[in-house]
Amino acid sequence: MRVSVIGGSSVPPETAAVAEELGKRLADRGHTVVCGGLGGVMEAVCRGAASAGGETIGILPTDRRADANPHVTVPIATGMGHARNALVVMNGDAAVAIDGGPGTLSEIGMALAHGRAVAGLDTHAVSGVEAVKSPADAVDYVERESESTT
Amino acid sequence: MRVSVIGGSSVPPETAAVAEELGKRLADRGHTVVCGGLGGVMEAVCRGAASAGGETIGILPTDRRADANPHVTVPIATGMGHARNALVVMNGDAAVAIDGGPGTLSEIGMALAHGRAVAGLDTHAVSGVEAVKSPADAVDYVERESESTT
Amino acid sequence: MRVSVIGGSSVPPETAAVAEELGKRLADRGHTVVCGGLGGVMEAVCRGAASAGGETIGILPTDRRADANPHVTVPIATGMGHARNALVVMNGDAAVAIDGGPGTLSEIGMALAHGRAVAGLDTHAVSGVEAVKSPADAVDYVERESESTT
Amino acid sequence: MRVSVIGGSSVPPETAAVAEELGKRLADRGHTVVCGGLGGVMEAVCRGAASAGGETIGILPTDRRADANPHVTVPIATGMGHARNALVVMNGDAAVAIDGGPGTLSEIGMALAHGRAVAGLDTHAVSGVEAVKSPADAVDYVERESESTT
Repeated sequence: MRVSVIGGSSVPPETAAVAEELGKRLADRGHTVVCGGLGGVMEAVCRGAASAGGETIGILPTDRRADANPHVTVPIATGMGHARNALVVMNGDAAVAIDGGPGTLSEIGMALAHGRAVAGLDTHAVSGVEAVKSPADAVDYVERESESTT
Repeated sequence: MRVSVIGGSSVPPETAAVAEELGKRLADRGHTVVCGGLGGVMEAVCRGAASAGGETIGILPTDRRADANPHVTVPIATGMGHARNALVVMNGDAAVAIDGGPGTLSEIGMALAHGRAVAGLDTHAVSGVEAVKSPADAVDYVERESESTT
Repeated sequence: MRVSVIGGSSVPPETAAVAEELGKRLADRGHTVVCGGLGGVMEAVCRGAASAGGETIGILPTDRRADANPHVTVPIATGMGHARNALVVMNGDAAVAIDGGPGTLSEIGMALAHGRAVAGLDTHAVSGVEAVKSPADAVDYVERESESTT
Repeated sequence: MRVSVIGGSSVPPETAAVAEELGKRLADRGHTVVCGGLGGVMEAVCRGAASAGGETIGILPTDRRADANPHVTVPIATGMGHARNALVVMNGDAAVAIDGGPGTLSEIGMALAHGRAVAGLDTHAVSGVEAVKSPADAVDYVERESESTT
């Protein structure tokens, strides 16, 4: 399946470590990571997934594929700015939010509006988001929820 | 100024009454209402604004202007679905959120990501949203905040 | 009705004069002009329409309403770059193309793809575009074609 | 490199054969095909590329990845309708147009507006499009032009 991973573009090392572990676990389970393609959580989750040989789709706000972080295997340019957030969650079967500011909040809202299951790791406390304790729990949650809808 | 009003597309009468009063007050102060152009909070705020002779811009998810509620004076079709939420908040100088589900949450996130002041009437408790008690307070807040940034 | 007017963003004075006359005629007939909101043909057609008291909607590629030319009465920011061309033609009932380069070509294609009648004034010779000789003929054509579809 | 292939969604068998050969040749040269993800030219070019082990990115007008033709290896949902045409050409380094109606015309315009080289196989005669005689010539042209800009 595909899992959208959303989170801040500039995060402390411990948050990046969580995102990287999540990316590795998703790739180990054969899942593709979809994200916004830039830095912070986006770069860390791609680094983790790519290190495990996974596919990483980066849906960029700019019109230049070259703006993707180096661990994105399939960069998609949009030139749409923040409006591309809708595409990030639309292209996953479920989502995991890590930390994050207003942009992440908008993606959580979009994910829920599109009916996606959302696991949250230390992120906004919002109705509909399942707070989980670890990357492993996040993977379990999105796999279980996705199964129940197919 | 322009004020984006965001909220649920299907709301109880008391919420609609709050939105309608907000629309009337915004128009009385000479402001243009920007919204998603459909029903619920969107229709009520447009009804209020139009009743006071105000301009109402409805930025629709569909590609048909005819889908706008009857109180929209300037319908804008987008055919972009939920991704049009980014345009709703981008086209206001500030935002007021009323009630609302995931779509509204995504708009709050987008508004904050675009640096807009956001007043909240009985909506998501989110960092960065100023909880206010009445439509009059919402108008005061967005006028004051907008002034401080110009 | 609404008429999308599409054309180059940098044009010689005689082309601008044609666009300005078209805008004046459209406004005189009670029509709203929809355009891309920037310079060249877009600015000239808005100037003409505004001089006759008409409404002019400018759907901008940037995320800043302030980028609209001064004759746009309803600026709509999109932050979508060239992708906003689809919205320019979607929001008119018919289109008139004047001169223009590749961007105009993309709008002609979009207009035809959306089933809009397109009159052309010294523009790309494309199947489906009705070549007309004057702004008056362009107005006649879009009024007649639009009537036939309603 | 990535090559956007644009053309009609419903084409006669001989046009589909041309598109399929083009896809195979692009994949043989190590290029990724980017297209609109649906039927006609889009499906044929993906079939050819996939048969040669190539990567095929399908940027869909709908919000459902499942709408992609079966030979798309990376479906990207957008929910943006025709406005997604801008993304199809933005994500290639050059473009090849085959046959095609108004939608293809809009993509040719967008490709030129983004400064992409465009080879045309029996398509719209438009200034800026290099008319070529065969899929092999199309591949030569986009490789040569792309080289000259890097």
